[in-house]
Formats: sequence, C-alpha cells, structure tokens
Amino acid sequence: MIFRQLFDPESSTYTYLLADPLSRQAALIDPVLEQTERDLTLVKELELTLAYVLETHVHADHVTGAGQLRERTGCQVVASTRGASCANVHVRHGELLQLGGLCIVALATPGHTDDSLSYLVEEHLFTGDALLVRGTGRTDFQNGDAGQLYDSITQVLFTLPDEVWVHPGHDYKGRMVTTIGEEKRFNPRLAGKDRASFIQLMSELNLPPPKKLGIAVPANRACGLNAPPPQA
Amino acid sequence: MIFRQLFDPESSTYTYLLADPLSRQAALIDPVLEQTERDLTLVKELELTLAYVLETHVHADHVTGAGQLRERTGCQVVASTRGASCANVHVRHGELLQLGGLCIVALATPGHTDDSLSYLVEEHLFTGDALLVRGTGRTDFQNGDAGQLYDSITQVLFTLPDEVWVHPGHDYKGRMVTTIGEEKRFNPRLAGKDRASFIQLMSELNLPPPKKLGIAVPANRACGLNAPPPQA
Repeated sequence: MIFRQLFDPESSTYTYLLADPLSRQAALIDPVLEQTERDLTLVKELELTLAYVLETHVHADHVTGAGQLRERTGCQVVASTRGASCANVHVRHGELLQLGGLCIVALATPGHTDDSLSYLVEEHLFTGDALLVRGTGRTDFQNGDAGQLYDSITQVLFTLPDEVWVHPGHDYKGRMVTTIGEEKRFNPRLAGKDRASFIQLMSELNLPPPKKLGIAVPANRACGLNAPPPQA
Repeated sequence: MIFRQLFDPESSTYTYLLADPLSRQAALIDPVLEQTERDLTLVKELELTLAYVLETHVHADHVTGAGQLRERTGCQVVASTRGASCANVHVRHGELLQLGGLCIVALATPGHTDDSLSYLVEEHLFTGDALLVRGTGRTDFQNGDAGQLYDSITQVLFTLPDEVWVHPGHDYKGRMVTTIGEEKRFNPRLAGKDRASFIQLMSELNLPPPKKLGIAVPANRACGLNAPPPQA
C-alpha cells in the first residue's frame, strides 16, 4: 500500500493519502481545505488517481477539502449514513469500499460525534477523533456521548489485534502513530478504567469550544464548499 | 526495524526513534530539548534501551536534547568529527554504528553546515537539513556552502536507489517523508538544475536569520546542557 501522512499545522489535523500501487487508485482521509494544493500536487507527482475522500466525521476544528477535491478530480466523497448529506457515498458499520486491490472497511465508532467512522485498511486503522495517541476525542458537543465512545473503543477498536497501527486524526504533541496494543496498555483515559470512570473523566474535562466550531460544522455539512475564504 | 517519527511544533523539527526489535536497542535522531519527557516516555513504553543520540549537525533552530538524554539514560551522543565536541562518538563519512542487529551508516553531507551528516539504516535515509521535501537546507551561515551542498546531494544522496525513503529534519508544510526518486524528479532546487544555477538560487534566498540562532548554536555545541530554561 502507498501511504503518506500529512499534517495541517494550524488545526493539528492529520490527513492520510492511501493508494493501491498497482491500479494507482488513491484515497485521502480527512483532507483540510487550506491544504488542497499540497494534497493534489502529491497525488499528481505520485501518479495516482483520487478515487475517494473518506471523512471520519463532520469536523469542528477545520474545514474539509472534500468538496473542492471532488470538483477538481471527480472523486467520490464518503461519510457515515449519519454524516454530511453532501457526501456521495454513505456507509454503515462493516461496509466495504474497494480501492483498486485494497479493501477499506468502515467501522462505526460513534461517541466523539454520532457520525464518527474509523477505517481499516490491511493492518492500518484510521480512527479520526475516536481514539487518539494516549487520548480520545472529546464528547461534549455534536451529539457526543462518552458512554458510546467508551463502547466504540473497547468493543470495536480494542478487539483488533494489538499490532494494528492506529493513525489518529490529530495529535498536539508531535506523535504520529500508535498501536492498538499501546493504547490498551498506556492510554490514560482507558487503561484500567471502567465505563463509569471514563464517563466521569470526560464530564470533567471542561475544554474551551474549538475555535472554528461555528464556521467548521456548517461548512463541513456542505463538504467545505460554502466555507468563508481562508483569510476571513 | 521499530520506527517512529516525532514532531516539535515550535521549531517544525522531526525527531526519529529507531530500534532493533530483537535487542530493543534504540537511537534518537535529532531530539529536541523541550520534548525530552515525551521521547523518554515513548522509549520506556516501547520497552527500549536508548543506546545512541545521533545528531545530524549543530542545529541553529532548536536546542538538542542530547545532553539531557545522555545524563538520564547513559546513552552515547554521536556527531560528525566536525560537530559538537561534547559528543562521545565522532564519525566520518562511511563509518558504521551497530544498533543491536541494525547497521547505521554515517554519510558526510556538508553544505547546510560543514558538519552535516546523513544516516542510512536499511532503506531509510535521515538527511537532517541537507535534503528536505522539495527543498534543501539553507547555506548562508555556520560555514554553509551551496556548492558543497549541491555536491553532497547529487554525488552522495542521489546515488542511492530511487526507492530509499528520505526522512528530513524539518518540513513546514506538513509533509513527512519523501523518496530519493521523488526528489530527483520534483525538487525545484535540484531537478534539472546544474551546480552554478543551484549556487545562484541559494545566494538569492534572502532568508531572515533563524530566531534561535544566537541561543541554539552555542547551546548545541555543549549538547544542550547550557541552554537557558525553556521559559527564558
């Protein structure tokens, strides 16, 4: 599998480029609007054809590049059945997407938001904001639900083999990857914590709202196509 | 090989953790002082023993964590024979370091600074600030020399196979990796440019001095042990 991790410094968002080396069919997971030129340049230089943009959820901290990428490449935008209605393809838990010779499995992992998906490709798991490196997504807006997130992580993600690579949607300390085994052992919100303790812990985070919440959520429901210009 | 890339958001520096999975012997390439706790936590969680800190050069944009890591783990600090005198091991072009079952080859790639080294481990090349993603290090201080950098890249690095992964010391656009083949084809400073054109281009960059130049260079000559505290 061709694999590249990319970073948006403003929102600390990780975008992933995946491709099948034979067919050159590619997917971008969680592209950021302001990085569209960078991402399309890389797709072109690696001689790939963008088949899919895969959204893990309707983001509150950055505006998606999905709509622009679809306009410029003709790719399909994939989201959860509970996700943005502007997507072309809405997938449920367990649905498969074919990317040339690669098989992408959508896993419903709600809790950070009610539409959160993770994607599994070979031994690589893309968790969006469900499971992060030594952390999790927050659960205090967009129909977030701490109990549901605990269930998604412990009953869906933690049933995968310990060796599976976990590629998160963000990290704020410069860590880029982890594994299921590491998070089972070392995630301070989850290791040795029961469901009630996790719900309690999440209720006490008292985080400020994301800076772009008011702009990003409505923009992302339209695949980023009604976003204000970056300088606004 | 165990491999992790880490990022320091303040200086946009990439640090790399490499380890031999059998012996659990590890090396950190270009650690950043402020990230020492993060890096040591990861070394511990992955059940590794830090054997080496490998410096690609005396940095001007961040202070190294080498000295602190040596004090806390007993590791060896490796630099060029032209590099910081505080290092325990000074290596020349072509010298080998053994990391358990892994073999690390030091390659002299001066030009950004006169002490710049790249390290080759299996199909992974760590280039420091010599070769960057679609760019190169600057050559306007610390005995930098554009002609020498051109020679280092074209006569040392570009003689490696196209498939070799290039892991840079920095990127400012969220790109994390490239390959020798990509840089030969797409690096705007090098593709189709002769030595004279490269020297001309580098002489016209007119970049401001790095913010930490005055602090970082003397601190790094002492392996970061005389650095002012981070809040200063």
